[in-house]
Amino acid sequence: MTDKTYVFGHTNPDTDSIASAISMANLQTQTGRYAESYRLGNINKETKYALDTFNMQEPELLSKIEDHTNVIMVDNNEFSQSVNGIENAHIQMVVDHHRLNLHTSEPVYCIAEPVGCASTILYKLYRQEDVTITPRIAGMMLSAIISDTLMFRSPTCTDQDRITAEKLSKIAGINLYDYGYKLLEAGTDISDCTAEEIINIDSKDFMHHELKITISQINSSNVDEVFKRKPEIEKAIEAKIKKENIDLFVFVVTDILEANSRVIVLGNRTDIFERAFHTELIANTTLLKGVVSRKKQILPAILQGIDQKIEL
Amino acid sequence: MTDKTYVFGHTNPDTDSIASAISMANLQTQTGRYAESYRLGNINKETKYALDTFNMQEPELLSKIEDHTNVIMVDNNEFSQSVNGIENAHIQMVVDHHRLNLHTSEPVYCIAEPVGCASTILYKLYRQEDVTITPRIAGMMLSAIISDTLMFRSPTCTDQDRITAEKLSKIAGINLYDYGYKLLEAGTDISDCTAEEIINIDSKDFMHHELKITISQINSSNVDEVFKRKPEIEKAIEAKIKKENIDLFVFVVTDILEANSRVIVLGNRTDIFERAFHTELIANTTLLKGVVSRKKQILPAILQGIDQKIEL
Repeated sequence: MTDKTYVFGHTNPDTDSIASAISMANLQTQTGRYAESYRLGNINKETKYALDTFNMQEPELLSKIEDHTNVIMVDNNEFSQSVNGIENAHIQMVVDHHRLNLHTSEPVYCIAEPVGCASTILYKLYRQEDVTITPRIAGMMLSAIISDTLMFRSPTCTDQDRITAEKLSKIAGINLYDYGYKLLEAGTDISDCTAEEIINIDSKDFMHHELKITISQINSSNVDEVFKRKPEIEKAIEAKIKKENIDLFVFVVTDILEANSRVIVLGNRTDIFERAFHTELIANTTLLKGVVSRKKQILPAILQGIDQKIEL
Repeated sequence: MTDKTYVFGHTNPDTDSIASAISMANLQTQTGRYAESYRLGNINKETKYALDTFNMQEPELLSKIEDHTNVIMVDNNEFSQSVNGIENAHIQMVVDHHRLNLHTSEPVYCIAEPVGCASTILYKLYRQEDVTITPRIAGMMLSAIISDTLMFRSPTCTDQDRITAEKLSKIAGINLYDYGYKLLEAGTDISDCTAEEIINIDSKDFMHHELKITISQINSSNVDEVFKRKPEIEKAIEAKIKKENIDLFVFVVTDILEANSRVIVLGNRTDIFERAFHTELIANTTLLKGVVSRKKQILPAILQGIDQKIEL
């Protein structure tokens, strides 16, 4: 019991990275192993809402780890999205639902499944170990599933996520849909953010055939309200494009009620976006009906758009 | 049911690679998914003994796969030890007990555990899916555990492997130890092999700080008999060292009854071996008491031996 295990998700943590770290650390502790959850960045507003609702403390911030530290990676398996020093850590376990990009020098315990949320896998581990899920832990895990699947409407969502969320809502003693929309809504508040902050809330860069593509995404329950700030958002995007030599910047505002996305697309390669979605941008914008997932919908279409151009 | 899934282990297959491919393909089929097992090389004598005992056919040989083929990797997750074309396959699932070295472009189902044998994990999957294990399948899975753990004496062996083997022996209706020694014994027959064949039965290369190390291992129930052929084996090793620019060649003859290993060590960097094991080679040979695992005992010691030298 002397060797503590550090449990954490990815940098720029979302609700799943925090919830699955908390629930995994608890599962370890309940089965006699000393573990603590950590966060690799600031808590966002959605996660704060979940923590406040279920009366949970936010995990401590972790900026680096010593060599040979015992760690459990949840909701992530890529060193590039993990803590400083992860290369020399002793990885005990990985629980994730993303693509795999992992090298270890020794065999490790790894469970990866193509489900919508890491907390859905954690639920099964609690069942396997026969550990009781408290209402507060259930509330956090439920929040993670709602968040990752955008209330079951993301194409990443599976039946397992839906069924697990139903069960967790009963344990947590709350109405899934009432709570769910409040949670998602809490994450959409950008009233006190500058345009620069808005485009960096959840921004990811991708390189493909020497093109740098940035896809930034926010959720909103009032897309029109966001688009009232379009001029200043465009200015912030233009500045970032210039500073970081970005070829294509896609700013995605996902409507959590309608499950559509309205985008602002800038850069000198907007032709890639237009080809990818068979659309024409008018004043740098268009509506993508039924599109909510960066991972499953937007990114693959853009990569294919680039590949097609190369083949032409 | 039109899309067949190809199930296979690693190249130069051992009993676990064949048994876990067979049992995984069967598990898929029993749960309504069309899958077939394959082998990525010739069957060794130990595996042949197991197949014959349990009246199983050897899987078909697979030398390459088409793009987008559905595959399940068992007992391996490294592309370098897999079939030609694996890079462009659609990996549905990975079940393994080795270190992880895997990149995928999409989320996959991956179960890796630090147990002694992939078939030990397969046993749990059968239980999870509530699929009956037939005596013949149980016999193959049991053979894999006996083989990988050298009858539970390898340091890679866990309690889970032992318990699973006991259960499987009951399903298969055989005496674990009686059968086990016959199985291991069957794998030791080198009477019809040339010296060159002997040193290539199970040979793995490793690069470390620009040094090329080759560790070749065979099991034996009569080490003295093997060492009667020492002169011709040494000649074959010297030829291989010259041809392939090997710095250190370690030929390991593991005594399956005593759980020791006697080695022949050649190359211009035998000093690394001597430092690694705090021993002195006499006529190129020494006895390593209690050493049976290349992965857990021999390789780590040699790598450390190299690192120490560099620090000096």
